[in-house]
Order: sequence, then structure tokens, then C-alpha cells
Amino acid sequence: MLVVWKHPENASAQFPNVQLISSLGAGVEHIIKDPAITSKHLISRIVDPTLAHSMQKHVLTCVLHFHKQWPFYQVAKQNGQWAKPNPIERPIKVGILGVGALGQAVTKILQTVGFEVIGFSRKPKEIPNFTVWDSENHSLPSFLQEINVLLSLLPRTPQTEGILSYELLRNLPKGSCLINVGRGAHLVEDDLLKLLEEGTIDQAYLDVFQEEPLPTSHPFWSHSHIFITPHTASITHQENAAKIIADNYQRLKTGGPIRFEVQLDRGY
Amino acid sequence: MLVVWKHPENASAQFPNVQLISSLGAGVEHIIKDPAITSKHLISRIVDPTLAHSMQKHVLTCVLHFHKQWPFYQVAKQNGQWAKPNPIERPIKVGILGVGALGQAVTKILQTVGFEVIGFSRKPKEIPNFTVWDSENHSLPSFLQEINVLLSLLPRTPQTEGILSYELLRNLPKGSCLINVGRGAHLVEDDLLKLLEEGTIDQAYLDVFQEEPLPTSHPFWSHSHIFITPHTASITHQENAAKIIADNYQRLKTGGPIRFEVQLDRGY
Repeated sequence: MLVVWKHPENASAQFPNVQLISSLGAGVEHIIKDPAITSKHLISRIVDPTLAHSMQKHVLTCVLHFHKQWPFYQVAKQNGQWAKPNPIERPIKVGILGVGALGQAVTKILQTVGFEVIGFSRKPKEIPNFTVWDSENHSLPSFLQEINVLLSLLPRTPQTEGILSYELLRNLPKGSCLINVGRGAHLVEDDLLKLLEEGTIDQAYLDVFQEEPLPTSHPFWSHSHIFITPHTASITHQENAAKIIADNYQRLKTGGPIRFEVQLDRGY
Repeated sequence: MLVVWKHPENASAQFPNVQLISSLGAGVEHIIKDPAITSKHLISRIVDPTLAHSMQKHVLTCVLHFHKQWPFYQVAKQNGQWAKPNPIERPIKVGILGVGALGQAVTKILQTVGFEVIGFSRKPKEIPNFTVWDSENHSLPSFLQEINVLLSLLPRTPQTEGILSYELLRNLPKGSCLINVGRGAHLVEDDLLKLLEEGTIDQAYLDVFQEEPLPTSHPFWSHSHIFITPHTASITHQENAAKIIADNYQRLKTGGPIRFEVQLDRGY
């Protein structure tokens, strides 16, 4: 068994007898892109309840911050102005791209606080108390027309790279909110600047970027309608990750089914 | 029946036959301080589920903002710095002063999101799933030593004026958070500046002030560790308020018990 996180290319080729390769985190793009890892290997990742809880709280902070007009108050404070926004609370409908374990956990907490949520999935999915549109019956642009807060929790696969483009995001209603906690590669960063300038997107909460750390000269730093967190939205709890890895090792030895198995062809 | 909100002094004396006086909001200090209103009157106020929901979301925004270290990211962004706070999530224990309808609603949502909450009450109170300390068995200073986020939802009464003083608040652990959504008269504003300077309080979220609108020259405007909302934490929903007032009028006419009755001597 190999346990890896962003390992040097082909490092895995040194271990011909490896049967199971586990990522140390929720993402597996470092495993997918390694040509020495093939469909003869079992692959697993970490699905950690602490990570989900951490992510729930991050997304909730973003959605509440936008809904309760805190960006407005921030500006009012800088100007020393006692000013009330109109409306006091922005009406919100959240759309989620990526309706896996994390997406479902986030949906649950948003619904509990009273927000409306719909999801979008490639394949039709039946999830209790969660309306999920799918690409067989709906188009992604029509999904964006339906919501005003877009949350991307997509995994990184060749199909999702650059998916958050001007072409797609211009379908959001004027004054929308973008929350990207998936992967930096999803968002075409110049396109976001254009959408902010046009007013289609009023506020963006970004945790992931094309290049990390975000370069000092990047225009996002000085943009007043972008909130930046340095890839800290959620954190894998080390003890929980260790338990999952140890458990999968036991399962491998005793021939039991591996937990949190990854499909190499699907990419997650 | 009289329906009032911050009415001119003694205006109520013009109506000698009035039996029921209803506030147009949750607060009743404008009724309490009117010498023409006595214990022979019935007094009621608005307890509005929308107002409670609005308040739940406001407090949750404050607590998450503090817990998820957003003040740190704000500063990092201004400096163009990719910096991670330590810890990524601040450990939190919330203490609530004012364990009435609003306090209980806020406690519920905070618990749902995973935060620990305890309340403090003058008299012993039994509330399911909510630990409430009381002044018969505990001191207020010992309560503050137990928590690191203090939320004041107190009503305004002669006993609570100036209660949030240096003398009391210095019992909070270093780096605490203060959220005042009760009344501006509770907080000794100069004392807060001193506590922020000393580091006892690291961050304050204030929705109410001694003087509203907060004067342009007030030092709170330029203080980077104070977040200001202009008395917009929660808003009474007009239709709901109208329904409660109409219902109480019917109850008055038919001799039924008044809803949301206020005790003049207790002050709420």
C-alpha cells in the first residue's frame, strides 16, 4: 500500500507490488495524472467528517456574508457612514456543482439555516430532500439562470478544467455570488474580472487558485469584491485520516471492500 | 388599544380608556419609561419568527466570521499576503446573556452548526438541551471566565444599563469576541476601547449603540477590530407584526389571554 500526496512524478513506479494507493486528502489529481498508476491498482481517498464540517462552516460563512450584506457594511464602515443596505437581506438561491459527500453535507447545513439549494450533476441522482438537476434533462446554462449563488465543489478532472468561464457564468443573474472551493483550475480568472466589472457577479469568495500561493502581483488581491482565503476552507483532520488509512490497510489484508474507492476513469 | 413605537412623552395620557398597549417591535423601553402607562394597563410586544430567524442568521454570521478567522484574512488581503492563521479555526464557546425567545432561537442554530453554547439568567431556568447558569448559583464573572464569545441579547431595563463594563468584561479570556445585539445602553463604549487595546477582546460585532446613528466622529468607525451594522441585525416583518396586533385586539375584545404580554415591573 502507498500513501501519497503530490508525490514526485513516477515515484510510484519504484513499487511494482503495490496494490492499494491512498491519497492523504480528499483530492486525487496527483494520483490520476501519474502514468505509472493504472486500472490494476486500487485507489482510495480520505472522506473525513471533520473536513466536511469545516467545509460546511466555510460555505455557510460565505453565503451568510453575502446574504446579510456584509460587503456593503465593510464599505460603509471605511467611509464612516451609517447606511442601511436595500434589501437588508439579499434573497438567495444556491446552486451546487459537485453533489458528492461534501456537496450533500453543505446542502444540509444551508437548508437548516433556511436557504434554498439545488444541485447539478452529470448523471441523474436521487438524494432525499435535495433537488438535483442533471445534464441529461437540463442544460448547465439554464441551471445558472435559476440561482444567484454558485458554489463549485467539483473535483478536478480534464472535463472540469476551465468550466467556470465567461461563456458559462454570464448566465447568472446580475448581482450574483460565486464561491469556489473546488479547484483553482476550474475558474478562468480573467473571465471572473470581466464578470465582476459587468456586474453579473457582485461578489466572489475564492479559496483555490490557478497558482498557489496566489502571486503577489495578481489583480485579485486589490479587487474589493473578491474575498480570499488561502486554501483553508476545510482542513483534513490528521487523526481521522490516519484511521481511514489504517482501516483500508486492514481491509486490503483481509480481502474486505476498500472504503472511499476512486474510479480512475471517472476521476474521483 | 394603543399601538406605539417611540411615541412622544405622555402622548398616551390622552387616551384614558385604553386597556391594551402594544409595542410595534420586540423592545418596550418606550412604554416602560412613559409615566402615564401603569400597572392597570395590559402591555404586549411583538415576538416575530421572522425577526428570530433574521437574528439567528446575524449572530451566526458574527460567530462564523470570528471562528473562521475572517478578520485575519481581511488584513492579509489588504497586505496582499498569502498567510494562514493559526489555528485555522478558533475554538469557541459562546455565552448568551438574555435567554428569552430570541436567545433560545439563536442557541438552537449555533448548536446545529456545532458550537457549544451556555446561557446566563437571573432566575434558574430549565430549557431542554440548553445549559443555563443563573445568578442564584453562579456569578456573572465566573460565567465570563468560562466562555470566549459573549453575546448580549438583553432587554433594556434599569438593571442592565451599562452592564457591559470594563469591570465585568475583563473576566473574559484574552482574545475573546463580543457581540452586542441587545441595546446600545448596555455597553460602556470607552471601556470596550480599553479592552480591545489590552487584547482581552480581540473582535467586537456591534449592531446597537449609545447614540444612533453612531456619530461621524465616533472612534468605533476607524477601529479595525470592530464590525458595525447599523441596527439591522434583525428586522420585524410588517405583515407578521400586523397579524399579532390584530390577534391581540380580538383577544382583548373577547376576553382571551393576551399573547406576548409584558410585565411592567420586570421590564420585558
